[in-house]
Amino acid sequence: MKFSIKRSNFIDGINKVSRAISNKTTIPILTGIKIDATKKGITLTGSNADISIQTLIDSKDHDNELAISEPGSIVLPARFFSSVVKKLPDEMMSMSVRDDFQTVIKSGNSSFTINGLDASNYPHLPKINTDKSVKLSGDLFKEIIHQTVIAVSNQESRPILTGVHFALKNSQLLAVATDSHRLSQRKVALPNNKASYDVIIPGKSLMELSRMIDQHSDVEMRLSENQVLFLMGNTSFYSRLLEGNYPDTSQLIPDDSTTQVQFEAPALLAAIERASLLSHASRNNVIQMSLKPGQDNVTITGNSPDVGNVKEDLKPKAIKGKDLSISFNPDYMKDALKSLGNTMVNIDFLSALRPFTLLPTEDHQKNFVQLITPVRTF
Amino acid sequence: MKFSIKRSNFIDGINKVSRAISNKTTIPILTGIKIDATKKGITLTGSNADISIQTLIDSKDHDNELAISEPGSIVLPARFFSSVVKKLPDEMMSMSVRDDFQTVIKSGNSSFTINGLDASNYPHLPKINTDKSVKLSGDLFKEIIHQTVIAVSNQESRPILTGVHFALKNSQLLAVATDSHRLSQRKVALPNNKASYDVIIPGKSLMELSRMIDQHSDVEMRLSENQVLFLMGNTSFYSRLLEGNYPDTSQLIPDDSTTQVQFEAPALLAAIERASLLSHASRNNVIQMSLKPGQDNVTITGNSPDVGNVKEDLKPKAIKGKDLSISFNPDYMKDALKSLGNTMVNIDFLSALRPFTLLPTEDHQKNFVQLITPVRTF
Repeated sequence: MKFSIKRSNFIDGINKVSRAISNKTTIPILTGIKIDATKKGITLTGSNADISIQTLIDSKDHDNELAISEPGSIVLPARFFSSVVKKLPDEMMSMSVRDDFQTVIKSGNSSFTINGLDASNYPHLPKINTDKSVKLSGDLFKEIIHQTVIAVSNQESRPILTGVHFALKNSQLLAVATDSHRLSQRKVALPNNKASYDVIIPGKSLMELSRMIDQHSDVEMRLSENQVLFLMGNTSFYSRLLEGNYPDTSQLIPDDSTTQVQFEAPALLAAIERASLLSHASRNNVIQMSLKPGQDNVTITGNSPDVGNVKEDLKPKAIKGKDLSISFNPDYMKDALKSLGNTMVNIDFLSALRPFTLLPTEDHQKNFVQLITPVRTF
Repeated sequence: MKFSIKRSNFIDGINKVSRAISNKTTIPILTGIKIDATKKGITLTGSNADISIQTLIDSKDHDNELAISEPGSIVLPARFFSSVVKKLPDEMMSMSVRDDFQTVIKSGNSSFTINGLDASNYPHLPKINTDKSVKLSGDLFKEIIHQTVIAVSNQESRPILTGVHFALKNSQLLAVATDSHRLSQRKVALPNNKASYDVIIPGKSLMELSRMIDQHSDVEMRLSENQVLFLMGNTSFYSRLLEGNYPDTSQLIPDDSTTQVQFEAPALLAAIERASLLSHASRNNVIQMSLKPGQDNVTITGNSPDVGNVKEDLKPKAIKGKDLSISFNPDYMKDALKSLGNTMVNIDFLSALRPFTLLPTEDHQKNFVQLITPVRTF
């Protein structure tokens, strides 16, 4: 293997696949980055037990200033190699591999020789059946991820809840996540897609993926039995799927309510954040919300014998229905409000012990619903 | 105690004294921030075993919008109180203390009640004798600190070396630090100061202090037997002194040399940083420098059987004397070169086993000298 390349473009590729590389792996070769030089260009691969990322630095793209004089492959220690490439002095760099896998890297007056590993020992990436595929715009896909991963469980006791449930049926994509205390659900109409599938994608994979999505480009999602592949331009992102049946969440979102209130999401978020300072300093992380439609008034209170107490008076944009006092974990409310951004939010309550819903006021189709279970304090 | 104040100015004061407050202290009241309201204004105090910081929010400064309706004192849990004040909704805030030390904090529609502690149990700050004092401009004092603390030891086995030795004699201030592998020395002429003293100030205190120094204002340093006080405007910074005799460093800096080389400091730093990537990945953190005045050439090499090797070719700005090959810890060289910034540096060598010196080329008075001990590799 022998090639020269524009260093900044090489670094971009290394950064992409490095997201999949962990130093904690028990398989030594996976601490490395795989570099393949072919006629098409330089293909970089990084992988761990859950995700694999592959990207092509295209020889046809003149901006890469890529000149391959000898094809071949090598695996180099990822973290060390990446820090070397980033520190090299010149705009251009060259790499050449000797028969004993020693790799010489040159740039300006600097020369590194790095001990490499035989690339033929690197695991093969999964082959993905291309029957089932969905294409979405990058910004929409990012939005779906951000709106659902917040409700994913981070406890391994029920592994299935650490993923987001993606179901495509009747030209509608439904993404749902719940940690059993709260739920977040997003619907997207896909009128031109007649496919049907039902998978659970690990929340961690989706978070890593969302950092790589370019909001101005499309993302294609391809499914096989136990793997999913996301295609983004020259980059492929593979994730394993979670096995098992996701709990049925279709009956959880209530249709009716007895108290309805409307807030500017950022104003409510600021008040909840202040109240949570106190609940975080006390033993039980709970705050109370008291709604009095007759007085056009909502108060949030928190109390801890050790630390003190807090009271927030809020003026809702609209409020109607019955008086209600309800207790909940402020962190669930914070996550839910943050995911809404700078909009108006409708919160609908049934009783002090039944889950309540948050919906963007503008969202008449109920495409994005969040559900929070209250805490019993009596 | 009862007052109202412009919140942003109150936060500035809280941030200043919070630097001295640690949650790890074994004295519970020191996890708190002390607030005193007097005619002069609001005095805030934070303290730990090593340093204490006190700042006055002046009632005469109209920008503070300070209105004290009842003088008094309270101690509040620092971290919680600080996060509450930062999150309050309004530009203004008020505080009032009840008889049971419960403190009510109000801003906009938000109201916190925090359990406080009796301020009379807060330790008194040391009294400082004002006979011995030095006044320096903020930028010069910051420079002296930055140039010396890099060489301070972080090992508690010889506590005296964790400090910087400040000696004032014959109208000259000498600041020296050494961890026994390297030394950094700064001289400053103080023609108008006839005082004489000799103290060792903990390196950690100086680093914390340097973050607070305004480079456009003066710093006054006042000394007592076992404490030093730095006065900066309305803020007082107290530190304990280290007890004991600092080793005599006056004979360590060699007067002569057999090989002299001159570099642009940033170019040499970049090459050393690259070479250190390899030395950090290998077991012994050492690189070699080979100087050949006859060939106008300097090379840096590093070698590790596990990882690989590195070679950097350097073109010095000037070089003369004998051929020399010398080994050293690249981290000491990196620290030394970083402290020099964007200047030319002269490096003078005696032999492969004798310490070598780094001096800014412009510095003909040798006001700032750094010394590095090489590593024996044979």
